[in-house]
Amino acid sequence: MGALEKLNRIQKANSTLLCVGLDPDVQKMPDPIGKTPDKIFEFNKTLIDATEDLVCGYKLNFAFYEQYGRPGIKALEKTISHIPFKHFLIADAKRGDIGNSSKAYAKACFSQGADAVTISPYMGRDSVLPFLETDEKMTFLLALTSNPGSEDFQKLNVDGRPLYEHVVEKSMLWASPSRLGFVVGATHPGELEAIRKKAPENAFLIPGIGTQGGDLVATLKANAGGPCLINVSRSIIYASRGVDFTERAREKAELYREAIRNSLENAK
Amino acid sequence: MGALEKLNRIQKANSTLLCVGLDPDVQKMPDPIGKTPDKIFEFNKTLIDATEDLVCGYKLNFAFYEQYGRPGIKALEKTISHIPFKHFLIADAKRGDIGNSSKAYAKACFSQGADAVTISPYMGRDSVLPFLETDEKMTFLLALTSNPGSEDFQKLNVDGRPLYEHVVEKSMLWASPSRLGFVVGATHPGELEAIRKKAPENAFLIPGIGTQGGDLVATLKANAGGPCLINVSRSIIYASRGVDFTERAREKAELYREAIRNSLENAK
Repeated sequence: MGALEKLNRIQKANSTLLCVGLDPDVQKMPDPIGKTPDKIFEFNKTLIDATEDLVCGYKLNFAFYEQYGRPGIKALEKTISHIPFKHFLIADAKRGDIGNSSKAYAKACFSQGADAVTISPYMGRDSVLPFLETDEKMTFLLALTSNPGSEDFQKLNVDGRPLYEHVVEKSMLWASPSRLGFVVGATHPGELEAIRKKAPENAFLIPGIGTQGGDLVATLKANAGGPCLINVSRSIIYASRGVDFTERAREKAELYREAIRNSLENAK
Repeated sequence: MGALEKLNRIQKANSTLLCVGLDPDVQKMPDPIGKTPDKIFEFNKTLIDATEDLVCGYKLNFAFYEQYGRPGIKALEKTISHIPFKHFLIADAKRGDIGNSSKAYAKACFSQGADAVTISPYMGRDSVLPFLETDEKMTFLLALTSNPGSEDFQKLNVDGRPLYEHVVEKSMLWASPSRLGFVVGATHPGELEAIRKKAPENAFLIPGIGTQGGDLVATLKANAGGPCLINVSRSIIYASRGVDFTERAREKAELYREAIRNSLENAK
């Protein structure tokens, strides 16, 4: 089964576009779990078990694991193994290097079991192609990210259009939507609408809802029913630091799932 | 001691600008060492011991370690520990993410002992700043890379100048040359000359000599005596796959060191 088909299936089965970002920061982990890297897997496992019927997938940002060295990498591997196979698993690694190095990164990301990976476009075609070799895996290329720094280069004017539009247009020639999606931040609904028009069939990984302040209704309206995942990390996983953290995380995930469904209705 | 000062010292002590890229590919490793990930450290150790008086530093491209999973990461850690402290150590990780994630990557890269890291500029200011917080560490921001894909986006025309010039100009406002350098490929000597004029004091990490075909004389002429490292990976470390691989690697490193010194003379 292709990765995009897998995404469609789980989104239908769980009636949800919600993806939870498992980004461990031991300082913020609940007191009953503990605040050391060897507790990360237990934290993630509890969150996965509490939310798996409410979400379509999980996104693991590698930075949060790599910062803890070997115990972090071990937690990453155990988390990947614990995520149910039917869920869509995104390795949020933002890699990108010259051809032979990108080949090695593709092997590193996909051999662990991820269905999809995030990639930076700056180094161009030969840095992205090694990730696009099979329908079994998807690549979300950074187009317009959710952070303030997205203004610095992504929005620069190239021949009358912003750089990120060139990234979208050019990369669409490299692979079909079954392999290629884009990261588009919810903090830019106007621009998301324009990108959706250019790429009607490509899946969008949409961060920026929650702590980063993106507007869900505006985002889903701009997305115009295209394939997408709405990623929420901190406001779900750190909903509480007390003994009730499992219930609070589940409640938050339920709220986001409902809010997404209502926004989809309102956006019609 | 600041990282740039450390680089200057070892370059003077060993009369060399040569940096060796330790990019393990087990298929290409010498027969006497063996072709499995658990032999990577032995391979690297032999190369380091054979070249340490000829080079100013070592560059470790994380892709080549991560592709082998846990044994690869272990080899990376052991290699970092084996590199003599006086040498300049570059974590060639090409990371870059939103602010809080980049902070985690900075911790991951620098806490292992690297003096410098490579970073992608696409996500802008808040994705780069966490790497620029101390003179003890340097960041080489991707400006114009050595691969064919550098044509796709890096050279796009933004207000009459290529995108990579905007990357250089804008990022120079974020930190002094003691913290910020640039990756500029030897495959573009004309452009390197222009970047050097804009950034006379920033260190350049220059890949693309050797297997990738960059011209050493043209590159060093274009660099006009600015601080730099000339990185060579494959043509040194895979100089032979037989029992003579240590001698051949050392010979190749000597040849490159001499070629760099002669080119510097010719470029005057």
